[in-house]
Amino acid sequence: MQMTYDPNNIFAKILAGEIPCHKVYEDDAVLSFMDIMPRSPGHLLVIPKAPARNLLDIAPDVLTKLILQTQRIAKAAVSVLGADGLTLQQFSEAAGGQEVFHIHFHVLPRWEGIRLQSHPAPKADMAVLAEQAAKIRAALG
Amino acid sequence: MQMTYDPNNIFAKILAGEIPCHKVYEDDAVLSFMDIMPRSPGHLLVIPKAPARNLLDIAPDVLTKLILQTQRIAKAAVSVLGADGLTLQQFSEAAGGQEVFHIHFHVLPRWEGIRLQSHPAPKADMAVLAEQAAKIRAALG
Repeated sequence: MQMTYDPNNIFAKILAGEIPCHKVYEDDAVLSFMDIMPRSPGHLLVIPKAPARNLLDIAPDVLTKLILQTQRIAKAAVSVLGADGLTLQQFSEAAGGQEVFHIHFHVLPRWEGIRLQSHPAPKADMAVLAEQAAKIRAALG
Repeated sequence: MQMTYDPNNIFAKILAGEIPCHKVYEDDAVLSFMDIMPRSPGHLLVIPKAPARNLLDIAPDVLTKLILQTQRIAKAAVSVLGADGLTLQQFSEAAGGQEVFHIHFHVLPRWEGIRLQSHPAPKADMAVLAEQAAKIRAALG
């Protein structure tokens, strides 16, 4: 299995500020931003700043920070968007569904009776993403 | 949103020893066992012993123990089963896909070119589950 971290992946470029994102949260260890091809309204990603390919190589202390912020952001997103629940996903390696090889948790707010958009979902309206990100940021205080 | 822990859920009964399981791992805080309706070979679940409904109410210290053991068990499962990757899922509330209301992470070992079985998958051969559980237990040392 290929387990090397590729520093040219798109999330590394977002972390380096070379590509913009609709930021939801940032601290010393973690960055969260909206998925631009949302499978549900409010679909966001949470990533560590430290390089890690996926669940198979991330350092336990980084994983701890990542999951705790993921929980905090997920709760805020569900609350502020009025969702009925949420689906959390993490894909490791291409066989596991991974497409960007910097570990990320998908946070998918969910509503009763509404299925996830199949992947790949259409690219979102950037104004909508900006508004959702602002709402969740505000809820995080 | 309903957020009360129901102590009569099936995982509470497994924790109480009232219902058997194919155990993969157990410590003071965490239990892991094979999913009896596997969506991929080696599909297993990791749960905390402390009562928590889902990601929206689990205590951060319990979540930390849960994700760290989930990572350790996932790595062992991928390695010993010769998987090409893995998919991690966590469903919160019915709208999010949750069916048993005691928080659990799904660990789904994955192979190139093989899709997940659609849910609900057929009930597994118990001898196969017992063998997979024994292999992963052995790999965990």
